[in-house]
Amino acid sequence: MQFHHHGYVSGDPRIESAAGSGIDRPEVLPECVDVLIVGGGPAGMIAAAQLAKFSNITTRIVDRRPGRLEIGQADGIQARSVETFKAFGFADRITAEAYRISEMAFWAPDTKNPENITRSKVALDDPNGAISEFPHLIVNQARVLDYFAEFAKNAPARIQPDYGLEFLGLEIHDGEEYPVAVSLRHASGDQEGQQRTVRAKYVLGCDGAHSGVREAIGRKHVGKAAKHAWGVMDVLATTDFPDIRTKCAIQSASGGSILLIPREGGHLFRMYVDLGEVPDDDNRQIRQTTLETTVAKANQILHPYTLEVKDCAWYTVYEVGHRITDKFDNVPPEEAGTRTPRVFIAGDACHTHSAKAGQGMNVSMQDGWNIAWKLGHVLSGVAPESLLETYSLERHEVAQNLINFDREWSSLMAKPAEEFENPEELADFYVKTAEFPAGFMTEYPKSMITGGTEHQALATGFPIGKRFKSAPVMRVCDGNPVHLGHHATADGRWRIYAFADNALPDESSHLASWAEWMLKSPDSPVVKYTPEGTDLDSLFDIKVIYQQPHGEIDFGPDIPSIFKPKVGPFQLTDYEKVYAINAEADIFEARGIDRNGAVVVVRPDQYVSHVLPLEAVEELALFFDDALNSRAR
Amino acid sequence: MQFHHHGYVSGDPRIESAAGSGIDRPEVLPECVDVLIVGGGPAGMIAAAQLAKFSNITTRIVDRRPGRLEIGQADGIQARSVETFKAFGFADRITAEAYRISEMAFWAPDTKNPENITRSKVALDDPNGAISEFPHLIVNQARVLDYFAEFAKNAPARIQPDYGLEFLGLEIHDGEEYPVAVSLRHASGDQEGQQRTVRAKYVLGCDGAHSGVREAIGRKHVGKAAKHAWGVMDVLATTDFPDIRTKCAIQSASGGSILLIPREGGHLFRMYVDLGEVPDDDNRQIRQTTLETTVAKANQILHPYTLEVKDCAWYTVYEVGHRITDKFDNVPPEEAGTRTPRVFIAGDACHTHSAKAGQGMNVSMQDGWNIAWKLGHVLSGVAPESLLETYSLERHEVAQNLINFDREWSSLMAKPAEEFENPEELADFYVKTAEFPAGFMTEYPKSMITGGTEHQALATGFPIGKRFKSAPVMRVCDGNPVHLGHHATADGRWRIYAFADNALPDESSHLASWAEWMLKSPDSPVVKYTPEGTDLDSLFDIKVIYQQPHGEIDFGPDIPSIFKPKVGPFQLTDYEKVYAINAEADIFEARGIDRNGAVVVVRPDQYVSHVLPLEAVEELALFFDDALNSRAR
Repeated sequence: MQFHHHGYVSGDPRIESAAGSGIDRPEVLPECVDVLIVGGGPAGMIAAAQLAKFSNITTRIVDRRPGRLEIGQADGIQARSVETFKAFGFADRITAEAYRISEMAFWAPDTKNPENITRSKVALDDPNGAISEFPHLIVNQARVLDYFAEFAKNAPARIQPDYGLEFLGLEIHDGEEYPVAVSLRHASGDQEGQQRTVRAKYVLGCDGAHSGVREAIGRKHVGKAAKHAWGVMDVLATTDFPDIRTKCAIQSASGGSILLIPREGGHLFRMYVDLGEVPDDDNRQIRQTTLETTVAKANQILHPYTLEVKDCAWYTVYEVGHRITDKFDNVPPEEAGTRTPRVFIAGDACHTHSAKAGQGMNVSMQDGWNIAWKLGHVLSGVAPESLLETYSLERHEVAQNLINFDREWSSLMAKPAEEFENPEELADFYVKTAEFPAGFMTEYPKSMITGGTEHQALATGFPIGKRFKSAPVMRVCDGNPVHLGHHATADGRWRIYAFADNALPDESSHLASWAEWMLKSPDSPVVKYTPEGTDLDSLFDIKVIYQQPHGEIDFGPDIPSIFKPKVGPFQLTDYEKVYAINAEADIFEARGIDRNGAVVVVRPDQYVSHVLPLEAVEELALFFDDALNSRAR
Repeated sequence: MQFHHHGYVSGDPRIESAAGSGIDRPEVLPECVDVLIVGGGPAGMIAAAQLAKFSNITTRIVDRRPGRLEIGQADGIQARSVETFKAFGFADRITAEAYRISEMAFWAPDTKNPENITRSKVALDDPNGAISEFPHLIVNQARVLDYFAEFAKNAPARIQPDYGLEFLGLEIHDGEEYPVAVSLRHASGDQEGQQRTVRAKYVLGCDGAHSGVREAIGRKHVGKAAKHAWGVMDVLATTDFPDIRTKCAIQSASGGSILLIPREGGHLFRMYVDLGEVPDDDNRQIRQTTLETTVAKANQILHPYTLEVKDCAWYTVYEVGHRITDKFDNVPPEEAGTRTPRVFIAGDACHTHSAKAGQGMNVSMQDGWNIAWKLGHVLSGVAPESLLETYSLERHEVAQNLINFDREWSSLMAKPAEEFENPEELADFYVKTAEFPAGFMTEYPKSMITGGTEHQALATGFPIGKRFKSAPVMRVCDGNPVHLGHHATADGRWRIYAFADNALPDESSHLASWAEWMLKSPDSPVVKYTPEGTDLDSLFDIKVIYQQPHGEIDFGPDIPSIFKPKVGPFQLTDYEKVYAINAEADIFEARGIDRNGAVVVVRPDQYVSHVLPLEAVEELALFFDDALNSRAR
């Protein structure tokens, strides 16, 4: 954590100074805003948090609820989300209060006494931490929202949700400065029932499965109707079932199954109890299933074990539907590229599916982060409007993959035990596909912000289009062991990692030439695109990683200046951009980096944009001319 | 973190429900309190935080300052303190914002060009984490106080400091219910200048080096007057000194030295600049040394490097004095044991010394924790008043050791470079003595709460009288890798760790017999001393550690009931008391535990009280008869 460089901070350094000269941030929602976010769920709140780092953009977020979410809804937090929370500064805190999934147990009918269930297999969730250094967590969505809200409130733009405002509709008037006119109604409070209009440059619809924003822009939500129903309960209970604090898939011979998810705090757990196929003429009758019925069904499935519910915190019935919206912005597919999208949808507004793979909140957050930094860059004037077209392009494919995965997983979960060819089919699927639900299979295609794979061989462990997988290094200035990627906070900056060739700083080297070019060449993206009057590292956070142990690197005049920029009003040196290998886990080995060095370019949302040789300065210049200047159009 | 067992907690689980039936907690300081803490520094604030967990005790803490400390004072946080912060729930947060000391560099005159300094050695602070799993940190004392204040405010007794109240004096009226009458004066605010009296059962004086409480109880503060002065500055600066972000001891040939302490945030650092011997007739003139003079002196010492101070956050001059108070409570040494102490002093009020070993705040916090849980137990009626006599007994020796250590370290630091027999003398001392400044050399002598060492061989890695050194284990209920000791929060409970013999739960074993005895015998401390009407684990938190990997242990009916108590209004099972070895780091190996099992008893402040065989139930009963019933008196 870096602070004090604008003068001594006495209190919590996580509370940044409010900033944004000339920007009016009234208590009441203003007439005109740059970005209006509709819906304060995971997609909307992460977007607000990210945009709160852009102090010259006015962002407001409205939600129909009268106040913060208190209970219920999603609870699965994949490792990619915890990695994301790290960037927003609360990974450690939420991990401390969450349930951590270390393993999953599979229970099936006992072959000798099929009326009883028995443990058939236990699978590790992330064997040896191979998938991620971050854990797989379970915690109520309300806490995730709380932490994003705290971040948004403490960031320079000081964003707080405007609760009790319901979305009614919108109109787009192309050519106006604030082209999107949004109608809202006060859903609670003193002004309940009153309507008003807010004009925005861009609107982000994060208003859930029944999204009004989606409807207003005429997008189609396609997919199958529900077929299978589940009772979901968050309960406190006593039981003799031995794995009650382990994530379990439980299948009984009587048909029916339970997905058991232990929850935060050591006592609460969630059960998804199979309520069976829903007849076509059910007419939502299944939704009337009572808690008592669901608990009775759970007891049948758990036999010979029993469950006595002492307190129910939340209960609902839902039917699985798999739907995806045809495109995630207001420009119809056939008109893509002809004009700038003005309205975007994210989260459940564009993809709905079963809850049982624990994916929804996670994918929604990545939607929100993806569009938010792009809006931040376009509205700050550092990127062309065409950047916004990449949002639907990138996230639609992710949503489709999610729905395919979830369809397979929830079909397997709903399949009667006797239909399995092999009793371990479910467990095998879980283990085989672990990287997908952990959130690390997203791979963005080539675009103006994702380069080609010509030089991928120089850094095989940083696949272009996938998220930057951190690895341990040593910080030279203080000999601290740190994780290289954990320094990449959600500050909206591009990251450029220069992996050195094997020369030391006092020798002439490709790295030294590259650094000199970055600092001085008129073609350098730093020279061309860093906003005037800002610090050298305001748009590009450029780090070097030497191949030697840190004891061999002196933080002296031989370190190129691009890696030790002067920052803040006192123009103090930033010492945290110079790294060396951690001798116990050489990052060059761990990530397959060529010993002649490599440049790895990473987007503000942590996805690898490009891998290039140190010598390829022209290609680097061209890449950023595309990304930041839209040379291609 | 365990919660939800009294029903669903929607918000931050760190905010506990207020509790304490029948206790009045007025905004204004009441007439009578159980405990009055004078002084809100590290000793006082940790004491308030600990006592805030005792909901039936009224504790207030007064401080002369008008509000929270904003800047300056101590900044060194040893690993033992971070371990302590873990128990108070903020180790991760403060670590994230602090500077971490990984290594220390030693600079000495260059033998070829003695007018220049050169790096002579770099020493690792805690090689391979051998000393502790916790880091050595540097962060401003104000943040430590903030976190304790937050804990105290969120704990059941909801303690918040009463600022702006100055201690004037006290009188003790033995025999009264609230025997200590304390005179206070409003030092700021509306009532400035007004005096009032508060009556307390016990008073804890944490009012610093010039303690009024110490004076009021007639204790003697003995030791040498100051001889050596140092300029201390917290600054933002530019410099070409390459190790500016590393802790350094710098000695120049010109005489004079610097202790450089990098600080939180990546830019700020503290320098202790040698101002030389103070003449006897100095008459505090040295204290007039200006910042400019100190900076000029620093530049001389750093030659050939230079330092340009851009912003000074804090500056002071101090003279080293080494003093210790003869006894840490109001009962004179010659009357010890004849009556209950009513007034205690802690922190700088009883020991003052140089700041350069970075010890003061750390030792003060252990003082505060030591007395606070004891006051909590005595006032709750679970321990005899004689327990309070152990405070001075235990902490006086620690303070004496600290002063001896600091005297040696600060003499070495002040010694001119040319007087060293060997240029690495300072570095060697630092490495050789590392465990002391890390805070782990405290070893309490035998007493009513520290047993004899007859059975120490059963658990050689848990020395009786030293703090319980945690080790990795697996939690059986969910297969989570956890640190056994990190579950021991500052909740005021005794901990009993039952290390199993090598039988499985379904076999008869010494462990099973011990567990049965603990649950049912009329001699068992659980049966005898657990307050009526409270949960089975309200006074004793009893855990089992099996020798097998967790996959071999079923959380079923064979686990003895003492390890799965029913808790809270719904009488839910506590699943977090049953552990197995972590196969990658077997705790039995790591801590030298006998394969026939052992019982390790740990105090509420994490010090090992006793090691016994599983069979020695009679000795266990006798130990607690001493500790909780004062059988011995």
